[in-house]
Amino acid sequence: MQSFAELNPSQRLLLGPGPSMVHPRVYKALSTPIIGHLDPEFLQIMDDIQQLLRFVFQTKNQFTIAISATGSAGMESAFVNMVEPGDKVIIGVNGVFGNRMSDIVGRCGGTPIQIKKPWGQSIDLQEIEDQLKQAGGVKAVALVHAETSTGVMQPLAEVGKLCKKYGALLIVDAVTSLGGVPVKVDDWQIDICYSGTQKCLSCPPGLAPITFTDEAISIAKSRKTKVQSWYLDTTMIADYWSDKTRAYHHTAPISMNYALREALRLIHEEGLEKRFTRHKQSSLELFAGLQKFGLTPFVDESIRLPTLNSIKLSANIEEAKIRKRLLKEYNIEIGGGLGDLAGQIWRIGLMGESSQKANVVYLLAALAELL
Amino acid sequence: MQSFAELNPSQRLLLGPGPSMVHPRVYKALSTPIIGHLDPEFLQIMDDIQQLLRFVFQTKNQFTIAISATGSAGMESAFVNMVEPGDKVIIGVNGVFGNRMSDIVGRCGGTPIQIKKPWGQSIDLQEIEDQLKQAGGVKAVALVHAETSTGVMQPLAEVGKLCKKYGALLIVDAVTSLGGVPVKVDDWQIDICYSGTQKCLSCPPGLAPITFTDEAISIAKSRKTKVQSWYLDTTMIADYWSDKTRAYHHTAPISMNYALREALRLIHEEGLEKRFTRHKQSSLELFAGLQKFGLTPFVDESIRLPTLNSIKLSANIEEAKIRKRLLKEYNIEIGGGLGDLAGQIWRIGLMGESSQKANVVYLLAALAELL
Repeated sequence: MQSFAELNPSQRLLLGPGPSMVHPRVYKALSTPIIGHLDPEFLQIMDDIQQLLRFVFQTKNQFTIAISATGSAGMESAFVNMVEPGDKVIIGVNGVFGNRMSDIVGRCGGTPIQIKKPWGQSIDLQEIEDQLKQAGGVKAVALVHAETSTGVMQPLAEVGKLCKKYGALLIVDAVTSLGGVPVKVDDWQIDICYSGTQKCLSCPPGLAPITFTDEAISIAKSRKTKVQSWYLDTTMIADYWSDKTRAYHHTAPISMNYALREALRLIHEEGLEKRFTRHKQSSLELFAGLQKFGLTPFVDESIRLPTLNSIKLSANIEEAKIRKRLLKEYNIEIGGGLGDLAGQIWRIGLMGESSQKANVVYLLAALAELL
Repeated sequence: MQSFAELNPSQRLLLGPGPSMVHPRVYKALSTPIIGHLDPEFLQIMDDIQQLLRFVFQTKNQFTIAISATGSAGMESAFVNMVEPGDKVIIGVNGVFGNRMSDIVGRCGGTPIQIKKPWGQSIDLQEIEDQLKQAGGVKAVALVHAETSTGVMQPLAEVGKLCKKYGALLIVDAVTSLGGVPVKVDDWQIDICYSGTQKCLSCPPGLAPITFTDEAISIAKSRKTKVQSWYLDTTMIADYWSDKTRAYHHTAPISMNYALREALRLIHEEGLEKRFTRHKQSSLELFAGLQKFGLTPFVDESIRLPTLNSIKLSANIEEAKIRKRLLKEYNIEIGGGLGDLAGQIWRIGLMGESSQKANVVYLLAALAELL
């Protein structure tokens, strides 16, 4: 077998759809020598993480933890715990992740009822109400708050109230929004909200922060069928994270939890409002600069994400070639379009540590040379 | 909200059932600044990991990867990909993990056929054949190679051949054996074998190395029903890890893969045979030392694991109190008994970096003061 050289990756500036840049303090925490997953000191760290996650999710939900897998497992957890065979779930589909939700609901034996919109648009409140009425007996409504494939921010403030009116749960994907724009779980009456660590929380990928209301937990507990995933069964995981039981379920990823705690501590020190303003500001600076190259936003301002900035490309731009040169010559990663939008947009992530004026200035300077 | 202090855990010597100690080179890799999960340099790292995992699994299987979750998700992956409703699966149950397998098979709609043995014993080849004959049309036989709850090493050399004779797949849990004792996937005709990173591979917990034969992959591809887990659907994950497709599925835990690569590189440098001898030697030294305190092995020598050493305790030993003092006064973690064996055994892990003469000597010295 060949020999394997020491790990020595290039020093990238991560301005793609994730992962984002990571603060040195988080790397320091990540490489702190581990202790056991049932060590009293680790249980205290889990308690800290729960408190800090409640802070970023803006919730009082008791069950607010980090799932031991990436953001996609957060999505899977929300559905496998809630959806039983025959359950109807309304899903907003305006990008890659609404489609993934539908796929997962189908695997749970549920019936996905899709509200399809062109990529780049959001789902209207009226459309959701129409579907709730028409379908009847809907178990849950699932929406992607921040569509990473398009850069659309879904308005959510009124959806929770609407869902309650029809007895439906509200499930929200906040993978690309949590920590970068407001995600008000309690105020918006969200029942389950999940995210990933590698976007606006600026921690390496590997964990999925998630929060369930007490009502959602009690629905999981009173299911007719067992949760189809042992690994993601919330009723068992709750017993590991609870300070009352601490029952062994699986071995928590110790190092990743160290890193997440530190990333959350940084957010706590900065403060949410200041952090949201910083994200907004970086995005405005980016679009102001891009305008000089004739590049305009793909998404209407009213529903535009500041964390994932999608940019319309004209046919004369060799987008793949430029992205390759950005990576190779400037060590800058940005994202291309997914699916139908391949070749038509760029996706520039300004999330967490990546959302800095210096990064915007450098990217614009590099693009000035290449365009 | 309270303030959160800088992370500053105690420096533990990890001699419990996992996680084990981690080499400084692995921590260095873990804290290396990340790159994107579709960066060409990261794809090369994934290729290295696949090659190195084939080396430790002693297999040529193309699909040999690290699942983006802990060892328990490795178990879940094996079953959700293979088992469809109505499938019969023979499971050896002689500890915690056989029970967990049965639970998961049930959640897949399969029928677990348990071969129950007292904790501390292994499953006989004849018992497996009897069940294969009696049940008929068995889809798979699942065995725990290294029962972390008891310290039993299940003989496997003849089981694969037997399974082939009856047209059944062989699924093996090698969480506490891979990298510490021989796991010969190809020679033993194992169809699916999984492990965790935090035991004998001496990497922090967070990933599940797994290997499928081509036949197992084609069974997954030709299922009548979709794999119930989107996150663990091997047919999709194979397209991300394959150098032909590289199709985005989920964001790989970059840092954990950095660490795993380095942990595997260390194993590759040491060599498997030398490593297995080291594990055997440390275990012998431990039991020789314990004998002086009148402490004897729980498991018969012929099926005793050198990686997870279980020790019989007499009633006059206040085991929980001593474990607590070991942790508090000596910073040594060892494990107590699980389930039926609570209070009756200790579980001392000598896995990977933890399996060193110096650690055995220190533990014995500490026990000499406490006993």
